[in-house]
Amino acid sequence: MDITSLQKIANSSRLLAIDAIQTANSGHPGLPLGAAEIGAYLYGYAMNYYSKDPLWINRDRFVLSAGHGSMFLYSYLHLAGYDVSLEDIKNFRKIGSKCAGHPEFGLTPGVDATSGPLGQGVAMAVGMAIAETMASATYNTEKFNIFDHYTYILAGDGDLSEGVSSEACSLAGHLQLGKLIMFYDSNKISIDGGTEVSFTEDVHSRYLSYGWQVLSCSMYDFEAINNLTQQAKECSDKPTLIILESVIGKGAPNKQGTPDVHGSPLGEEELRKTKAYYGEDPDKKFYVDPDVHSYFEKKEALKLEKYSLWQEMYTQWKQENPEKATELEQSNHHVEITKEMVSNRYKIDEAISTRDASLHAIGSYSKLYTNLVGGSADLSGPNRTLAPHTPIYSAKNRSGKYIHYGVREFAMATIANGLFLYGHFRPFIGTFLAFSDYFRPALRLSALMELGVIYVLTHDSIYVGEDGPTHQPIEHLAALRAIPNVSVQRPADAEETIAIWDIALTRTKTPTLLVLSRQGLPVFKKDDPNWFDNIKKGAYIAKEATSDLKRVVVATGSEVSLVLQTIANSNDSSFDNIRVISMPDREMFYKQSHEYRSRLIPDNVEVLVVEAGVKMGWERIANENNILSVDHFGASGPAEELGKQFNFTQENIIQMLNNL
Amino acid sequence: MDITSLQKIANSSRLLAIDAIQTANSGHPGLPLGAAEIGAYLYGYAMNYYSKDPLWINRDRFVLSAGHGSMFLYSYLHLAGYDVSLEDIKNFRKIGSKCAGHPEFGLTPGVDATSGPLGQGVAMAVGMAIAETMASATYNTEKFNIFDHYTYILAGDGDLSEGVSSEACSLAGHLQLGKLIMFYDSNKISIDGGTEVSFTEDVHSRYLSYGWQVLSCSMYDFEAINNLTQQAKECSDKPTLIILESVIGKGAPNKQGTPDVHGSPLGEEELRKTKAYYGEDPDKKFYVDPDVHSYFEKKEALKLEKYSLWQEMYTQWKQENPEKATELEQSNHHVEITKEMVSNRYKIDEAISTRDASLHAIGSYSKLYTNLVGGSADLSGPNRTLAPHTPIYSAKNRSGKYIHYGVREFAMATIANGLFLYGHFRPFIGTFLAFSDYFRPALRLSALMELGVIYVLTHDSIYVGEDGPTHQPIEHLAALRAIPNVSVQRPADAEETIAIWDIALTRTKTPTLLVLSRQGLPVFKKDDPNWFDNIKKGAYIAKEATSDLKRVVVATGSEVSLVLQTIANSNDSSFDNIRVISMPDREMFYKQSHEYRSRLIPDNVEVLVVEAGVKMGWERIANENNILSVDHFGASGPAEELGKQFNFTQENIIQMLNNL
Repeated sequence: MDITSLQKIANSSRLLAIDAIQTANSGHPGLPLGAAEIGAYLYGYAMNYYSKDPLWINRDRFVLSAGHGSMFLYSYLHLAGYDVSLEDIKNFRKIGSKCAGHPEFGLTPGVDATSGPLGQGVAMAVGMAIAETMASATYNTEKFNIFDHYTYILAGDGDLSEGVSSEACSLAGHLQLGKLIMFYDSNKISIDGGTEVSFTEDVHSRYLSYGWQVLSCSMYDFEAINNLTQQAKECSDKPTLIILESVIGKGAPNKQGTPDVHGSPLGEEELRKTKAYYGEDPDKKFYVDPDVHSYFEKKEALKLEKYSLWQEMYTQWKQENPEKATELEQSNHHVEITKEMVSNRYKIDEAISTRDASLHAIGSYSKLYTNLVGGSADLSGPNRTLAPHTPIYSAKNRSGKYIHYGVREFAMATIANGLFLYGHFRPFIGTFLAFSDYFRPALRLSALMELGVIYVLTHDSIYVGEDGPTHQPIEHLAALRAIPNVSVQRPADAEETIAIWDIALTRTKTPTLLVLSRQGLPVFKKDDPNWFDNIKKGAYIAKEATSDLKRVVVATGSEVSLVLQTIANSNDSSFDNIRVISMPDREMFYKQSHEYRSRLIPDNVEVLVVEAGVKMGWERIANENNILSVDHFGASGPAEELGKQFNFTQENIIQMLNNL
Repeated sequence: MDITSLQKIANSSRLLAIDAIQTANSGHPGLPLGAAEIGAYLYGYAMNYYSKDPLWINRDRFVLSAGHGSMFLYSYLHLAGYDVSLEDIKNFRKIGSKCAGHPEFGLTPGVDATSGPLGQGVAMAVGMAIAETMASATYNTEKFNIFDHYTYILAGDGDLSEGVSSEACSLAGHLQLGKLIMFYDSNKISIDGGTEVSFTEDVHSRYLSYGWQVLSCSMYDFEAINNLTQQAKECSDKPTLIILESVIGKGAPNKQGTPDVHGSPLGEEELRKTKAYYGEDPDKKFYVDPDVHSYFEKKEALKLEKYSLWQEMYTQWKQENPEKATELEQSNHHVEITKEMVSNRYKIDEAISTRDASLHAIGSYSKLYTNLVGGSADLSGPNRTLAPHTPIYSAKNRSGKYIHYGVREFAMATIANGLFLYGHFRPFIGTFLAFSDYFRPALRLSALMELGVIYVLTHDSIYVGEDGPTHQPIEHLAALRAIPNVSVQRPADAEETIAIWDIALTRTKTPTLLVLSRQGLPVFKKDDPNWFDNIKKGAYIAKEATSDLKRVVVATGSEVSLVLQTIANSNDSSFDNIRVISMPDREMFYKQSHEYRSRLIPDNVEVLVVEAGVKMGWERIANENNILSVDHFGASGPAEELGKQFNFTQENIIQMLNNL
């Protein structure tokens, strides 16, 4: 380890960061100044990566959970040869720059996860470390360790204060993730003042209680950092927390060690003084010591060598293990399924809850998609996520395909993001729809990062029944549909459920939410012969009018069969002019061409919408008075009685149809 | 302590619970059977309450965080003389019963908090314990301890797995809440199996790391429980966790100690066997040993005596401290403010961010409302929640009026619910609007419990600028508006902000969200002379058409001045037919009479909506093509440039107006 060079690297990174922040007149200098050494150590010495293949599947992962310190990451990516130019850094926080305000996965080569919303970086890294153990167990052979790397985190006080990191790290300890190493930039400063104002717990012993190894040293002692990192690597049955005592904004003479340096540019004067502190010419901007460049150039050659050796090994492994290789390389291939595979599965009128049908789908599709990794937040039975004979993932069985996340919804969803980010696995996770609120910040990141995580959300309406308003989703459908790039799917029967699972599996860049019933729903005959294709557009004709079309009823989920039964049971021949549309994915339907939309809902018809959730968003296709909805909290009672109490009855639907 | 009687009480509670669950054919027998002793100890011996005044402000608080064990609570409330009859218990989980599926505050006398969504009960109790220290410090005198009570929690594995309890308990330790006592029903069983499948951390040492006292004993040893509770009470500078080793479903011979007994009725046969185990006649239903009733009757007399003594003390205290008494008793009085108080405060065209105006409001109103308790999740400066000279609440200053919650949004909001539930304090809390996702489950409970918690949510749109998409709210306005009983308010200038703070303070049964700008917004002249009253209806006329009204523009927040400027800058006299409506609270406007709605937006006009958020819900008043919205994630860049990039420009608004 060449400490002199590493120190130069750290200082170059510091000055790049503060110049970029000053130029943008926006950003967070505290972390890049205070924690530079750990970056120099990781990118300059410890980490295994090849900058020209930033998605190399056996690279060490690095997650900057304290994403506000983004310039820390960008400066190292630049120095280490990633496709992040000095020009990009000069355009930090400008529209279109690779160097966005917070690190964004997909935008910047070398950024392994979008971070900024605190705590989630930690939990995503836990997901990556789980993925590494799974990939190793599944694909490594006696001869070849295709997968063999570490997952590193840099986290701050804020990350460790958030509940999601507590949940995830408790699980990481339980799962004995020995190759997860978290560096904690312990600078004792928060925005509101010193951490003594709100965060005085003993982090060290907390992590011991989770079953982690905990070590500590100064941020500014490369030897110590290296020794502790070795200790971390030697401990194979525990994740390691390395607490690095640091000074926020180190080197900014008037601001270091204070909240002022956290999130605002230093100002020209303080900037110059900081450069002077580090022995650099205050007049030079975006200056990098040539020694630093030559250090990384030499490194690059070594890294290429290591990378090439791995590629050779991979080629050999592939030759000797063609089946495994196919499995690994076809991660997100699509298996064609046909309408017949679905339609012949159930009898018409058979009552099956869509959660049960979802379990059937999981059972079938997990044979076709070997990269599926299931799980639930302690609701495996109620969520119907655990198919028979699925091996459970654990510290003792790394090739398991199902994770017991415990009662930790937020960590579950964030870990699922990490599993997906890893580049091979396809996670699906379960909880009750009402508890989607608990993981909502992670879902937002699934959507923003364009990760095809599949969310199995059962107990989807007031029809949950006796568990009452805390467990009955009311506003959740609307609230989830509001998130850009999220596909909210509420199938109406078992056949739709199987079809929608297929859709979810094909959409690898969109998180899909399967919103499923607890109660049995009759399988119904679909009048649209192409329903299996058209459902991909969000909606199709479940029942066609048998006389001149005058009225359209749009419904989702359990309300579709309620509407179909209402019409079937009525002796009113005027009801012949009614078409019923099942619309499992409303936002997808809204995105369709005018042609498709008006083919389903012509301009001159009256529209009734029936959905057991809030009205919001249905006004686009129906008058506010013609929406049968639930716009208040639910109640505790038997499901059928609640249906009556909230006017989800055949009588009321008939009346609303007559009033159209 | 009469252990024989307490054991009888515990057993009576058990049998009431399992009979009720069997009759409802729904519910969770595991906790009522497994943890009955702690209920008998609290309600039969340790707790200070008077059942005929369930909201008595100096009662001991009890929160059943594991709310699924609701029959545990109902059976004790019944036995202890609260207004929960045997008939209510027989109607457990029926519509309209006081004994709902999960405990609901406001529905059932003696229920101190709605619980069920796991972890939140713990955090609400932390809020109550904070409130007790505040109330004591503020109202107790040398002579009189008006406030002097404990806050008890019963929590399960699920509660302690959730991140929100981690956050809240870390803060509770930091704040040295000596009168908070949490009993942990440690039965080692979760729904997915034994806790060994996912939850093997060392809870004992975790809580030590938070600065708690941690003790443990068997659930079934009254003497030990009592000794440890005394130890807890003697420790005045630390909250105490008492770990009670228990057997889930104790006494159900075939199901105890297994996940089966957690959440399903025992079944008739197992029910009979359980009764036999407890030495009761299996044929008796809803039977209570007469000794139990007579025990509680005697207790009631003693409790009345203690309660009366407190009332006498209170009367004396009140006489000697009339000012304090007025302050205490006028908790949620409304202070009349007038339009003049608001309108003279700012100059027209002065640019003030609404977050700054909110700080002005906080400064003014906190002098009028002495029960306001502010706070922020480590964003006191950016949220503008900390008015100058506000004393900070801490272990050393219990009369402080502002809480540094740390980077713990979810705990903050849940603790705020606890502060409000206490019955005197009015909490307001701050974070960025984008991070409202983090506390969303707590907001839902604010709304469901009808608590007037005030949420100060700054950085309200893409105009956050450089921090980029993770920090830019897009879908949040829609998602928050979707929750029943939540008032989402997005004021357009400083005057509106002051007025809306006033509205928020008057609405004590509705959580109000103040959605505030980071950037300066010009104060504008309002054409509606009654705007100050009409804004309470959600919307008013900001600018009236000066020729025949043909077009209406509806906008909120920062978009109102953008629209006003567009019209003012245009030389197009046809724009005289445009009215501009500021609609800070859309859902409130939607609830108005047809008369008011059509007075603002007549049927025959064209409507344009301008809001920097998703479209959802605006379709009720405008065609989907006439809504200028942001229906995708944001980007990192200077705010003004983002406005241009996303078409929030005068040019585009003019074009959209011309296309109407």
